[in-house]
Amino acid sequence: MIIYDAKDWGEAIKHFHTSYVIQVLLRRVAYVGGYGVVVTLVDQYVVNVEVPIDGIFFSLLGILLSLLLVFRTNTAYDRFWEGRRQWGALVNTSRNLAVLLDSLLPDSDKINRLFFARTLSNFALVLKGHLRTGVDMGELAKTDDQDPDALKQYAHIPSRIAALLMRRFQVLKQQGIVSDVDLITVRLYHQALLDITGSCERIRKTPIPFSYSFFIKLFISLYLLLLPLVLVDKYEYYIIVATILAAYALLGVEMIGDEIEDPFGLDCNDLPLNQIAQTIQRNMHEILAVPSATSVSPKPETNFMKVN
Amino acid sequence: MIIYDAKDWGEAIKHFHTSYVIQVLLRRVAYVGGYGVVVTLVDQYVVNVEVPIDGIFFSLLGILLSLLLVFRTNTAYDRFWEGRRQWGALVNTSRNLAVLLDSLLPDSDKINRLFFARTLSNFALVLKGHLRTGVDMGELAKTDDQDPDALKQYAHIPSRIAALLMRRFQVLKQQGIVSDVDLITVRLYHQALLDITGSCERIRKTPIPFSYSFFIKLFISLYLLLLPLVLVDKYEYYIIVATILAAYALLGVEMIGDEIEDPFGLDCNDLPLNQIAQTIQRNMHEILAVPSATSVSPKPETNFMKVN
Amino acid sequence: MIIYDAKDWGEAIKHFHTSYVIQVLLRRVAYVGGYGVVVTLVDQYVVNVEVPIDGIFFSLLGILLSLLLVFRTNTAYDRFWEGRRQWGALVNTSRNLAVLLDSLLPDSDKINRLFFARTLSNFALVLKGHLRTGVDMGELAKTDDQDPDALKQYAHIPSRIAALLMRRFQVLKQQGIVSDVDLITVRLYHQALLDITGSCERIRKTPIPFSYSFFIKLFISLYLLLLPLVLVDKYEYYIIVATILAAYALLGVEMIGDEIEDPFGLDCNDLPLNQIAQTIQRNMHEILAVPSATSVSPKPETNFMKVN
Amino acid sequence: MIIYDAKDWGEAIKHFHTSYVIQVLLRRVAYVGGYGVVVTLVDQYVVNVEVPIDGIFFSLLGILLSLLLVFRTNTAYDRFWEGRRQWGALVNTSRNLAVLLDSLLPDSDKINRLFFARTLSNFALVLKGHLRTGVDMGELAKTDDQDPDALKQYAHIPSRIAALLMRRFQVLKQQGIVSDVDLITVRLYHQALLDITGSCERIRKTPIPFSYSFFIKLFISLYLLLLPLVLVDKYEYYIIVATILAAYALLGVEMIGDEIEDPFGLDCNDLPLNQIAQTIQRNMHEILAVPSATSVSPKPETNFMKVN
Amino acid sequence: MIIYDAKDWGEAIKHFHTSYVIQVLLRRVAYVGGYGVVVTLVDQYVVNVEVPIDGIFFSLLGILLSLLLVFRTNTAYDRFWEGRRQWGALVNTSRNLAVLLDSLLPDSDKINRLFFARTLSNFALVLKGHLRTGVDMGELAKTDDQDPDALKQYAHIPSRIAALLMRRFQVLKQQGIVSDVDLITVRLYHQALLDITGSCERIRKTPIPFSYSFFIKLFISLYLLLLPLVLVDKYEYYIIVATILAAYALLGVEMIGDEIEDPFGLDCNDLPLNQIAQTIQRNMHEILAVPSATSVSPKPETNFMKVN
Repeated sequence: MIIYDAKDWGEAIKHFHTSYVIQVLLRRVAYVGGYGVVVTLVDQYVVNVEVPIDGIFFSLLGILLSLLLVFRTNTAYDRFWEGRRQWGALVNTSRNLAVLLDSLLPDSDKINRLFFARTLSNFALVLKGHLRTGVDMGELAKTDDQDPDALKQYAHIPSRIAALLMRRFQVLKQQGIVSDVDLITVRLYHQALLDITGSCERIRKTPIPFSYSFFIKLFISLYLLLLPLVLVDKYEYYIIVATILAAYALLGVEMIGDEIEDPFGLDCNDLPLNQIAQTIQRNMHEILAVPSATSVSPKPETNFMKVN
Repeated sequence: MIIYDAKDWGEAIKHFHTSYVIQVLLRRVAYVGGYGVVVTLVDQYVVNVEVPIDGIFFSLLGILLSLLLVFRTNTAYDRFWEGRRQWGALVNTSRNLAVLLDSLLPDSDKINRLFFARTLSNFALVLKGHLRTGVDMGELAKTDDQDPDALKQYAHIPSRIAALLMRRFQVLKQQGIVSDVDLITVRLYHQALLDITGSCERIRKTPIPFSYSFFIKLFISLYLLLLPLVLVDKYEYYIIVATILAAYALLGVEMIGDEIEDPFGLDCNDLPLNQIAQTIQRNMHEILAVPSATSVSPKPETNFMKVN
Repeated sequence: MIIYDAKDWGEAIKHFHTSYVIQVLLRRVAYVGGYGVVVTLVDQYVVNVEVPIDGIFFSLLGILLSLLLVFRTNTAYDRFWEGRRQWGALVNTSRNLAVLLDSLLPDSDKINRLFFARTLSNFALVLKGHLRTGVDMGELAKTDDQDPDALKQYAHIPSRIAALLMRRFQVLKQQGIVSDVDLITVRLYHQALLDITGSCERIRKTPIPFSYSFFIKLFISLYLLLLPLVLVDKYEYYIIVATILAAYALLGVEMIGDEIEDPFGLDCNDLPLNQIAQTIQRNMHEILAVPSATSVSPKPETNFMKVN
Repeated sequence: MIIYDAKDWGEAIKHFHTSYVIQVLLRRVAYVGGYGVVVTLVDQYVVNVEVPIDGIFFSLLGILLSLLLVFRTNTAYDRFWEGRRQWGALVNTSRNLAVLLDSLLPDSDKINRLFFARTLSNFALVLKGHLRTGVDMGELAKTDDQDPDALKQYAHIPSRIAALLMRRFQVLKQQGIVSDVDLITVRLYHQALLDITGSCERIRKTPIPFSYSFFIKLFISLYLLLLPLVLVDKYEYYIIVATILAAYALLGVEMIGDEIEDPFGLDCNDLPLNQIAQTIQRNMHEILAVPSATSVSPKPETNFMKVN
Repeated sequence: MIIYDAKDWGEAIKHFHTSYVIQVLLRRVAYVGGYGVVVTLVDQYVVNVEVPIDGIFFSLLGILLSLLLVFRTNTAYDRFWEGRRQWGALVNTSRNLAVLLDSLLPDSDKINRLFFARTLSNFALVLKGHLRTGVDMGELAKTDDQDPDALKQYAHIPSRIAALLMRRFQVLKQQGIVSDVDLITVRLYHQALLDITGSCERIRKTPIPFSYSFFIKLFISLYLLLLPLVLVDKYEYYIIVATILAAYALLGVEMIGDEIEDPFGLDCNDLPLNQIAQTIQRNMHEILAVPSATSVSPKPETNFMKVN
């Protein structure tokens, strides 16, 4: 994710080259501009191609299209923000669980402290992999009850980690370290882990319904195809400026929506899952007062970013 | 549900033929186009039929109509997304319950493990049937306390499954396997099952109020009926292009809204309930470490889809 | 509530005559059309009445008015949907409570089972009456602790039923049938009953602020009053078509909003509270395995409807 | 708060004179109309003052302004509705607490019953005063542990009442009247009291950010200042009609938003806090079966209103 | 944060000079106005620079841009309001915890009362620093278990304070002052502290995606760059008025959005975190009946403000 000072318009330009979607956008805008050039040349030198639909009617279609694009933008942004909220909840849940365990486990019980610090850190890394291209066992820290490679046999690894955690709570309860009442709170936090997993899966696997996506894409295509034909007699060469502006506006909103609606990818606008997972790892080890495993050092998604 | 790469405009075209609503849309657009042809021919060769209401006034009505269509789109999408959220919650609840039971039941207690894996899987299948055309007892796995066919006598089958689950928890409590404190958490998850059922019923059985639906449909019909009459003298044969564009835009948004607002049907944009139920079945058996019943192999709703 | 197949445009017409609001709307549209006729006749034969404000300025006002109407529509629909959600929650809560009680009460304890089946059914009926024209004691089933007529002395009957339920739970606890831990869950469900009551009262008793309602009504009136004066010289007799279209659009959105915003009435777009109450009654008796009282057979609100 | 039958357009007029904001609005509209007269006279008889910016450009600004006004309206209404929801929650919480206490306290324990009926009633009255001009100790009922005047020394009186309630619960627990499990539910309800207080304070003390408010007011002022200058040559005397319409629309939306966004005041559109507090008082005494103190008889905020 | 009487348009002007963003806005508007002057002069005296794109097409782009700006405004305001809600929740949680502790701790236990009053006050101050430029240890009150300076070694200080609180609850439980059931409620409140922290971090560290921000800024820049070229022949010198108006409207909405979306800064529209922290400090000491530490006297963020 690109972090920038939103108030500085100049700085925004500097990050321009790192935004993949904006580069593709400009390329597509160039194609549409080229089409505008062709239409003008044909109209000037070959045959009159104008479609005499007037501006007001065309504006009206444009307004409906604009409203749909804003609907699309809202939808995409809601998914982005809900994804961010889920990972924020993962940070909160991990911290709450660690603070509670810190008060329940004796200072000297380094074994259990290390187990929870590592397992909670692993959970975030596993969820990241699960939402992207697959879990990388090499990133995970070894815990006392399980070698990361043993996870490979499970189809749904986050559930497996959650089950291991739950079983350990049960052991602690039998050892009298965790009481009945503690268990109520512990399970509330534990439940959040799988709820977050499910919500992220939901966002990733259910895009905006195909009909809407197709409908809007076809609408934009028809609109940009007709635009130079409608305007060519009136504007002549300036039609190219108009076409480029319209393509920038319409394609831009649609494409950014497409990119934002799956916030767990590796695009430069997607969420910095690696960084958030590192934050969780650091926090877990600090709160539980155990030294941080140095095995995890993921490469940053992009150069400039802030995470909590 | 059609799964597609939203960023690839070309691929969107490929799935085009599988979207029933878009095919119906194009047919209706063709009818309106035909009407445009008739109006033009009559105007040219028979009698001047123009209604001289000017573009600006007509645009204004178009803007109000566009705003109403976006309201309708928002409403329909909210229902689609809430339906998806409920089924996501069913996945989460099933997993949470399985992870908790896995920690409470001894590894050797295959009877109870199998009971819960099958009953939770059955619940998802029953809910699917309940929301569609009726529960198919043949899809359900047999459990130790009930033959699926015994469910037929109940008017509301999801409640019956929920009652069987609750009674089993009570038995486990009397056997000392589940403690008082465990029961608090177990019941929280159990409650979610019937809450999800009720929410899905609410979405399916309460469409957007009839007045709005009728009002918008009549508004669109009047608009498309008048459009060629208003524009025919100015555009002549090009009126057909304008009519087709307007019909595509207005009918399209309305029709997709109609389709999306009941997300539990079998249309290609509806939710892949079968696949989600299969996911739950797989997860339940994996988490509770019992072999999956092979009796369930529902046919996929469409060929291409992803589920969690 | 009218139930219809939203995708069938023809069928929508069939239910047309049952929608009271649409009939009133068409009558008002006719009045405005008559006013348009008068303006045209006066302008043609008596004196030039045109107000030469041009279309663009008038369009602008129309856009602001359209935006306000969509705000109004959103607000009204949100209330309708929140009302539906509350009654859906009542269904869920009743079911959850019945399933829990079914697991706690011995199969042979028909007395308590009947008490809860009847009291929970009564609660829905009492809430319906409370939100409409008053509770009809004749609809209620007699329970072992109370004759329905004894409720008449209470100003707020839903609270009284809730208090009777809570007292019975307390009795069951003293008898050892309900344990401490059971009480936690039971009270959670019980709380929902009064929360739902309060939310429905809030929706019914707090309409959109008077200033907005008055402001929008006056805005529409001024707009429709001026419309023929602004356009009469340009359109002549066609002004009547324009006036009718505008009246249909503006009055329609406003009037449907007015009707929808109180979803507990008896209008054909309002919620089918009777049917929902019957569903609850059927579900309660089925889950608690007691024969349903036949004393309740409310007349349906309209002929065609689905309920859960 | 003015209560009216939203469907009756005629009746809306009757309440017109009681809406302060609409009176101020009409006065301001008159000023702007007067300015329009001056501009026309100067333009006709003194010097041409027209600014030749054409209608389309001006419309565009108008659309952005309209969109901002609807944003403002949404924001204001959300605050109004959230305020109403909080007071609805206060009603619900008070009832839930009373019903629970009714089941826990022996019928003969009039002392505690009276204490809770009065203290919960006082809480609503104190919150009303706290959100308006200050708590009126004379409205409060005397309880067995505290004379209302003793509250004067506290800076935050709602917290003090909440603390007194909590302490009494603790006493009841030590007396064995309230058990451990009861305490869990009691504290859940108790928590709601201070959450509601904090939410109401938040709504009252954080208006829409100054920048937005100032920006919109300046935008409207500039718009109405320029409007007659832009249109004067074209419309001549009719400019006055146009100016008045525009002023009505733009100022109206902004002013109603300003009034609605603080729903706890004494304006005629504000929430009927007195009535809601009386409802709570009546309900508390009925549920707890103690005679209502007659000391509270607040004057109604306006003549016509419904409360729950 | 500037507090003002939203209904008084005159007073709004008085606070004008304190709003930094509005000053920057006016400067930028002046630059764009200067550019308009240059374009006019070049067009008049040097060379015809007009781009003959007509108003309707340009309006259409303007409408899409307006809709995007309102989307941006909504997003920014939602973040502002969510930030406010989180700090409101911090006030509520602190009060609820204090009221509960007040009922549990003996009146004479000044040591624990002082510990909680100070630690809860410190938490708000630490969170404020954490969200701004860093925690100022000098602002914090010394508690019996920790010197503020000892916090310096921790990377995430709010978690540390939360851990200290949790450990103290554990001590109180071992001393029998806090029971098992008390712990359930105490932990619910405690959880809120870290949830609030995480939510505020999320708002601060995840701005609106870079693509949207860049896209909108480039759109506005192109629009304002072309505007005088499009209009110059028609309006001549009046183009300057048009350019200034458009710049005011477009830049204004964008810039206020940029400022509002991070509500934890020190801009005059940002939240008065210092004042809220002081409120918490005052409330904590009053409820727990211990004298307030006088060590905290933060300078107000601005001169005029209200806090709860």
